[in-house]
Amino acid sequence: MGAKRDHRGGRERRPHVVILGAGFGGLNAAMSLRRAPVDITVVDRRNYHLFQPLLYQVATAGLSPAQIAMPIRRILSRQSNATVLMDKVEGVDTRARCVVTASRRITYDYLIIATGARHTYFGNDDWAEHAPGLKSVADATTIRARILSAFERAEVTDDPVLRERLLTFVVIGGGPTGVELAGAIAELARKTVVRDFRHIDSSTARVLLVEAGTRILPTMPPCLSKKAQRQLESLGVEVALGNAVAGCDVGGVRLADATEISSSCILWAAGVMASRAAMWIDAPADRVGRVVVDERLNPPGRGEIFVVGDTASVSDGAGQPVPGVAPAAKQMGRYAASAILDDLAGRQTAPFRYRDYGNLATIGRKAAVADFGKARLSGYPAWLVWNFAHLWFLVGFRNRLVVFLDWAVAYLRNDRAARLITGQHEC
Amino acid sequence: MGAKRDHRGGRERRPHVVILGAGFGGLNAAMSLRRAPVDITVVDRRNYHLFQPLLYQVATAGLSPAQIAMPIRRILSRQSNATVLMDKVEGVDTRARCVVTASRRITYDYLIIATGARHTYFGNDDWAEHAPGLKSVADATTIRARILSAFERAEVTDDPVLRERLLTFVVIGGGPTGVELAGAIAELARKTVVRDFRHIDSSTARVLLVEAGTRILPTMPPCLSKKAQRQLESLGVEVALGNAVAGCDVGGVRLADATEISSSCILWAAGVMASRAAMWIDAPADRVGRVVVDERLNPPGRGEIFVVGDTASVSDGAGQPVPGVAPAAKQMGRYAASAILDDLAGRQTAPFRYRDYGNLATIGRKAAVADFGKARLSGYPAWLVWNFAHLWFLVGFRNRLVVFLDWAVAYLRNDRAARLITGQHEC
Repeated sequence: MGAKRDHRGGRERRPHVVILGAGFGGLNAAMSLRRAPVDITVVDRRNYHLFQPLLYQVATAGLSPAQIAMPIRRILSRQSNATVLMDKVEGVDTRARCVVTASRRITYDYLIIATGARHTYFGNDDWAEHAPGLKSVADATTIRARILSAFERAEVTDDPVLRERLLTFVVIGGGPTGVELAGAIAELARKTVVRDFRHIDSSTARVLLVEAGTRILPTMPPCLSKKAQRQLESLGVEVALGNAVAGCDVGGVRLADATEISSSCILWAAGVMASRAAMWIDAPADRVGRVVVDERLNPPGRGEIFVVGDTASVSDGAGQPVPGVAPAAKQMGRYAASAILDDLAGRQTAPFRYRDYGNLATIGRKAAVADFGKARLSGYPAWLVWNFAHLWFLVGFRNRLVVFLDWAVAYLRNDRAARLITGQHEC
Repeated sequence: MGAKRDHRGGRERRPHVVILGAGFGGLNAAMSLRRAPVDITVVDRRNYHLFQPLLYQVATAGLSPAQIAMPIRRILSRQSNATVLMDKVEGVDTRARCVVTASRRITYDYLIIATGARHTYFGNDDWAEHAPGLKSVADATTIRARILSAFERAEVTDDPVLRERLLTFVVIGGGPTGVELAGAIAELARKTVVRDFRHIDSSTARVLLVEAGTRILPTMPPCLSKKAQRQLESLGVEVALGNAVAGCDVGGVRLADATEISSSCILWAAGVMASRAAMWIDAPADRVGRVVVDERLNPPGRGEIFVVGDTASVSDGAGQPVPGVAPAAKQMGRYAASAILDDLAGRQTAPFRYRDYGNLATIGRKAAVADFGKARLSGYPAWLVWNFAHLWFLVGFRNRLVVFLDWAVAYLRNDRAARLITGQHEC
């Protein structure tokens, strides 16, 4: 290959679409514009797209990071109108229509903000050190190292009090991530590693799921919450409802009712806060920081800016808020792309309507709950649907057969081969 | 499962074999003693055994860490006379026959030291920061992030001098690791990522292999060194012979002949230093820190201590030093196990003899050199042998079919799917 042209030079000026974030929303917007007469720049501070619904599998050693992450460049390598920049967004100059990153200023004609969400400790940022959350690959390998190290340290110690603390795992938050983490840790302790130790019995490990509300999986119908709780309990998870966390420190968790739980492995799956996009564009935000957008996904008075995915606060048409799930982010990303095409063609765009295809949460290797409105599943059938759905939605960013082989092998072996304790502290 | 017995209590006292390190040497010693009437304790500061010959594949994004690492506990989970402790060795009290770790004292009847080697900067420890070496999984992911970040930063910058520095990769040391790294980086730049960038042409990247001696692969016959060099050059690697490194800093490398090479990605594959075992047991060491042992692999006057693998300095019987390669470590580990069995049975043990099955180095996806004494191969046949040999030697610590599928898929896709920039600096 010879020298390459600059992507903006050497031909007529085409509208420039800048997309911030290469999660489900941003990536689907970029891919929907692949045949459009526009130049696209995708900015992400990471070099990979992450299949976040399976991140808990990395945290519990079932999959490797590379099995659920994919280089953004590779996904878009054949899309010649798209440029990828690995860079950190520092702000947006909405007047000059310009994104400011750590290294440069990028002018735009259309801006799609898809920078997602991160976890929040509701103002208790000192809890972060003791109760890591799960949003990035680094979070997942940190959590994996904490879970595995707890067993290792329990095997080495002669102190029964310390051993009990090391074998107590607390997951805070009863949403899908908390349920998946608690179920996977219980299976790890009771099945996968049970033959590996000589001094401890890993199956006596205590796994506690703490939820402030009155039921787990609050976005599901109550009957499925109950089924999920029963499935979790049959795996050995204790579910504590109606009890908020009042404090986390190196020794464990203190609950609102003053119960103290001694634990060396606390995981945070409780609070989510949108990225700083509302501040960048000086737009109104809801209480978790999401930009309040209209039914065209624009913030007030900014028809050239679209906010999609977990960064957007939007209603589904029936007045219900659109949930912060991958299918919603994908739909919003595609909608923003089509609204830009309509705008370029001088057409009107119909308002965004969220299509809810159902709601799924997995609990263990053979259990899940699924809500498709009229149809509700639980147990093994729900688990099969969950797997098929994940496989299906991976299409477009990774070879489906390879993923199927990867996961089939991981499932058949059931030995969580990715049980590596790595990280800065290893040396 | 109920409460477990302590591994030393509740029955007659059996000889206690303590093995330090679960690399090829230590693990083969432990597995060879699986039916022996002894209790075994394996101590390693990591929780996984690493298939080090393929670590360069992780560093160049071809494989994931979990594909070449395996939990030590899982390998030994069904060997009921073996206990694994994840702990850091701090010293050995040879008089009391006791290993001192960070958490405890472990008395032994026999001690097998298999703690391997690390890289050395020949007294220039300040080079480490600028030229990371390749010994652990953390090293490999650090190097992977440096290589991939160099391309990312080159794509973002408008400064042509910086861009050239970012697209210059220097590998120091022409042994097998240096050759494998240089070949893999050249292939990555010229094939894998060549369609991924819009502003740079990754195929113009400069890959330089610097070797102080007069030829690369100095343990191979000269004709194979020459063939390997030609294969490297056809991949686009520049080979600089007879030139030592005089300095490394953030701007690049200075060579002994005063050449300055501006580079932001320098990799160290030049020097190896044994672990601190000689100091622990107060035994004589050679110039790279290896314990000088007799032909029973014992240090002077210590028939109950065996030193194996890269930590031992031993001759092969014909007066040649045994090389620091995986097959030698495995043979020494097995020998130490059989010498212990002989000792318990009151038998004499024949001296250790190294069996050299050949010497292999891979250069690219379809090239390698192999030396089997009489038979010498290069190019594609050598590459096939290299692959078969690696697959074969993985047996015993990971399911061969799974590894085969993993690697076959990785090879057929040729897209280095593990191209993830992760690490502490990612957030």
